[in-house]
Amino acid sequence: MTGTEIPEDHPRYASLLTRHRIEAGVEKGITSRQGLIAQGRAEAFDYLLGERTLPSADAAARAAAATLLAADRPVFSVNGNVAALVPEETVELADAVGADLEVNLFNRTDARMEAIADHLREHGAGEVKGLTGDGEIPGLEHARGTVDADGIGAADVVVVPLEDGDRAEALAAAGKTEIVIDLNPGSRSPRTAAVPIVDNVLRAVPNVTAHARDLADATPAERRAIVDDFDPDAALEAAERAIREGAFSDGDDES
Amino acid sequence: MTGTEIPEDHPRYASLLTRHRIEAGVEKGITSRQGLIAQGRAEAFDYLLGERTLPSADAAARAAAATLLAADRPVFSVNGNVAALVPEETVELADAVGADLEVNLFNRTDARMEAIADHLREHGAGEVKGLTGDGEIPGLEHARGTVDADGIGAADVVVVPLEDGDRAEALAAAGKTEIVIDLNPGSRSPRTAAVPIVDNVLRAVPNVTAHARDLADATPAERRAIVDDFDPDAALEAAERAIREGAFSDGDDES
Repeated sequence: MTGTEIPEDHPRYASLLTRHRIEAGVEKGITSRQGLIAQGRAEAFDYLLGERTLPSADAAARAAAATLLAADRPVFSVNGNVAALVPEETVELADAVGADLEVNLFNRTDARMEAIADHLREHGAGEVKGLTGDGEIPGLEHARGTVDADGIGAADVVVVPLEDGDRAEALAAAGKTEIVIDLNPGSRSPRTAAVPIVDNVLRAVPNVTAHARDLADATPAERRAIVDDFDPDAALEAAERAIREGAFSDGDDES
Repeated sequence: MTGTEIPEDHPRYASLLTRHRIEAGVEKGITSRQGLIAQGRAEAFDYLLGERTLPSADAAARAAAATLLAADRPVFSVNGNVAALVPEETVELADAVGADLEVNLFNRTDARMEAIADHLREHGAGEVKGLTGDGEIPGLEHARGTVDADGIGAADVVVVPLEDGDRAEALAAAGKTEIVIDLNPGSRSPRTAAVPIVDNVLRAVPNVTAHARDLADATPAERRAIVDDFDPDAALEAAERAIREGAFSDGDDES
């Protein structure tokens, strides 16, 4: 939690922290216009979920941790909103599971790529991939499909938080096991994922890290059992049900 | 529909038109960062509503039209997103019901006030109020409560689309009859309104205009009957039910 002066016991701590980090992201050239709109969509779905981690999302986070620990070449794909919202948490997760970090943007510009890589390094990252751009995900137009050949290009497991639907589908078609973090259980990205985590990145990323640390000493068989027991369709259905049943039920007046 | 080249039969016409207008709003200094995030929240709720005007929202639009036609001093309060998204439609509604236009911003700066007033004039507005700022809505800190004394300050009926909850409550406490357009039926602004329209401003504003034209020749008693028959709590409940029951029901995959 760097650079913020919001007291943690403030009733709207998470919301204010998010706002603060997004504003800082805009100032640094990390957060795009589309990123701000995406942030608003996320806020709406998080509001409907009650701004909490569902049990099904916690199970997904644990399955994600087990999947990452079992991976040969895991990569955490970082876009502008992820970098702005959870830079330190992203670096910690990558460290905990031995994943590479790769900047990958829907609207790729050199300036934003560099700003995001710098921001991750300021928050403790070592190597940050993505700037080479010598690989390609088949089935996407060039600007959308560019990746590092030895990063996402060679990965077996990819964490793609807040990913665009077309790209999530192309990554799955390219044989990647995807871990998607997205607050809308109806959107294509989580529906494409082997492990969809329907949760706010601010809660989900540290939660996957916590599970990874907890599973550090688990046997391969124990980790495999966690992955096998996880049902992505059931997790999506649980999130949809939580939104349907929880929405407006408590007279919450957040606007 | 000015300045856009999106064909009207495009399957995602409304969504692309919205995107186009919001981008133009950013370029012109009309749309703020908070406006972009608010746009994202609106997109999420519209997605859950099925991007359609509910019968209850159409009834609300008709009650709004009747309320505006019966008003002595109606004022349409215009913020950055309203100006960016529905400038021409806003001017048309104000003309149809004889309302004044007043720019009123949550984050008030002279540059944005002027840019929005200019944008409305480019879309056919005559006088645009709000820049005098010689009045005040009691109960709000100065920057938030500033209005024109002969505009919102003297209004009996105010259209406040996409309004902040604190300001909506202060306007109601000041005795204004409020018509609120907001896609989240759980937020405070529509809950404060005499006439809450839970609909996208792109659909709602022209719809109120259409009802106003339809009711132009109605008698005062006929208009009063429409207002009296409208139940704001029932309209909000219908919108909440539509979201709860409709969400994710059709396998929609919009991300």
